[in-house]
Amino acid sequence: MTAIRYEHIKTCKQTGARLGIVHTPHGSFETPIFMPVGTLATVKTMSPEDLKAMGAGIILSNTYHLWLRPGHEIVKKAGGLHKFMNWDRPILTDSGGFQVFSLSDLRRIEEEGVHFRNHLNGDKLFLSPEGAMEIQNALGSDIMMAFDECPPYPAEYDYLKRSVERTSRWAERCLEAHSRPQDQGLFGIVQGGEFEDLRRQSASDLVSMDFPGYAVGGLSVGEPKDVMNRVLEFTTPYLPADKPRYLMGVGSPDSLIDGAIRGIDMFDCVLPTRIARNGTLMTSEGRLVVKNAKYAEDFGPIDPNCDCYTCKNYSRAYIRHLIRSNETFGIRLTSYHNLYFLLNLMEQVREAIREDRLGDFRDEFFDKYGFNGPNAKNF
Amino acid sequence: MTAIRYEHIKTCKQTGARLGIVHTPHGSFETPIFMPVGTLATVKTMSPEDLKAMGAGIILSNTYHLWLRPGHEIVKKAGGLHKFMNWDRPILTDSGGFQVFSLSDLRRIEEEGVHFRNHLNGDKLFLSPEGAMEIQNALGSDIMMAFDECPPYPAEYDYLKRSVERTSRWAERCLEAHSRPQDQGLFGIVQGGEFEDLRRQSASDLVSMDFPGYAVGGLSVGEPKDVMNRVLEFTTPYLPADKPRYLMGVGSPDSLIDGAIRGIDMFDCVLPTRIARNGTLMTSEGRLVVKNAKYAEDFGPIDPNCDCYTCKNYSRAYIRHLIRSNETFGIRLTSYHNLYFLLNLMEQVREAIREDRLGDFRDEFFDKYGFNGPNAKNF
Ligand SMILES: [Zn+2]
Ligand SMILES: [Zn+2]
Repeated sequence: MTAIRYEHIKTCKQTGARLGIVHTPHGSFETPIFMPVGTLATVKTMSPEDLKAMGAGIILSNTYHLWLRPGHEIVKKAGGLHKFMNWDRPILTDSGGFQVFSLSDLRRIEEEGVHFRNHLNGDKLFLSPEGAMEIQNALGSDIMMAFDECPPYPAEYDYLKRSVERTSRWAERCLEAHSRPQDQGLFGIVQGGEFEDLRRQSASDLVSMDFPGYAVGGLSVGEPKDVMNRVLEFTTPYLPADKPRYLMGVGSPDSLIDGAIRGIDMFDCVLPTRIARNGTLMTSEGRLVVKNAKYAEDFGPIDPNCDCYTCKNYSRAYIRHLIRSNETFGIRLTSYHNLYFLLNLMEQVREAIREDRLGDFRDEFFDKYGFNGPNAKNF
Repeated sequence: MTAIRYEHIKTCKQTGARLGIVHTPHGSFETPIFMPVGTLATVKTMSPEDLKAMGAGIILSNTYHLWLRPGHEIVKKAGGLHKFMNWDRPILTDSGGFQVFSLSDLRRIEEEGVHFRNHLNGDKLFLSPEGAMEIQNALGSDIMMAFDECPPYPAEYDYLKRSVERTSRWAERCLEAHSRPQDQGLFGIVQGGEFEDLRRQSASDLVSMDFPGYAVGGLSVGEPKDVMNRVLEFTTPYLPADKPRYLMGVGSPDSLIDGAIRGIDMFDCVLPTRIARNGTLMTSEGRLVVKNAKYAEDFGPIDPNCDCYTCKNYSRAYIRHLIRSNETFGIRLTSYHNLYFLLNLMEQVREAIREDRLGDFRDEFFDKYGFNGPNAKNF
């Protein structure tokens, strides 16, 4: 019996998007879903109660960062990540692979694993499929990720082919090393860049290993949006319909909708909290930069169509004042709103799937947000 | 009819400390009380709901800082400070005097007011009794403070005498300029350093003007604790028993108790939130520096005798990890605990007054906290 089970509810007749429920040892959540990122065992500035109040069903935390600080052994001694951070709903941890490949300048990839340097102090480190499993088993997340090779973008076909093959061999080793399959579900990660035959090969390799879920990796790394959409279009059909599908590192509103339309169930990204720290907000009418002078005496809410804690209680003028004064409470308010915005967007996406009108919803949302306008921003 | 009324409940037979209630246009609070400081219209990292959950009855905000950012006219247009910051309980604002004298290097005191430079950008500014009233009337705080001259410590007798006389003249001008006495109560500030005759003169001048409350200023500026206690002992008897008394800038646990014993009703200080940002905590067993290595695997609460949100849900190990990682949520947790600790201490002080045993409570608390030990820390 696997720790993770996907229950399919229905498929949108207009778009093919999937409505489902993922069941985990710490409860269930409806999909498609957006997962707030809690890199260091905290979603920046937010309390667990805040996250529950805004409707977060699952959060993500980063294996690499927790390995370095405070160390996975300490989290294990604390009783696992849920207990350590006081979060009793599901947690997904990544494999550490992405950070090893993106944060470290000096790295050497061998068949055994990757040699690299600690981005905090330069110490030599080594991470392997077995190491990534040991750390995630110690953390005790509900969903673990296999340790994959994350190729640079763009990369040549031959490089990507070798990388896909290595990722498959590493995935086998992850399955082998995973010591708690009854408590934690391990997802495989499909690589292959923008080449359909490599994506097919990667998916086919991993599906033959029968993971309880699959991620699509190597996207949202700088490629144009239409490339991402095309890759999803030819990749998700190779994934089994009875397992959840997770698109890694995607959090802009348009990509969440377009990903759902292409059969994706789960998304994560630091975008909403990262831009919140600078006072940039996602609203139903597009992006709002609250530091702008025009909001100095604007006593309306960030988004008149939003009923989040921030929008119900605080004005643009107040939030602008806090952000300009480097007051943490300002970042609490903007982080809350942005996370709520994406969680609420996915709630609307699920509702639209239920009613077979996700295509119509996309058109209306894109129009109102400004994604169809000239010089449209990414978020 | 004044905006502020003091209701005396009882006097502690053991110490002479006062139990009372201060009534304001935004509700009432029991005294002695500690007031969290929300310098820029936010108590750093805390939400209004957090402050209510920990039992805060009144908060303080800083006239000087709000004058510069966002500007008192904006706060006025927002409907006043309460509405601007979403806080519907009482607010006290200081006069700006302390910041003018402590933050600015270049200042020139004239009878009309003080010329100085903006500590943010160096611009020339001028603040007078009339200006301090205009700003505080715009902010709409429940309790306003008169604009006083804050002398350096130590200062000569002659300097202090002239300063006391000027402060009395300025207090008259404040009363004259105050335009909303029915909505906001204006407190006078007693100065005079450590000289009994100057304190008597200052108190006598101000009491003759019949303010609805009085502050004791010029303490907690670097003088030894016994000097502060002695000054309070000979100053508070000159203040009317039917008005609240506020000791400015005091927040160490020992001084709160010793101040209450000397007839003080209200206290404020940035201490609990300032030390929280560095991971220093006040506990029932003394000061705790959570960054210390010995807490790395300590899964117990900050203070086993505390029932605050932080202590009920999080471990020393987790909080240490957050503070070391510069995660804001760590500062939320330490700020919450420290503020709760002082609010709860004052609740215990009020209970002890009610039961005529504040002297006994002081002895027990000082022993347990370590204030009686060798090399006792200030907080
Ligand atoms: Zn909102
Ligand atoms: Zn506590």
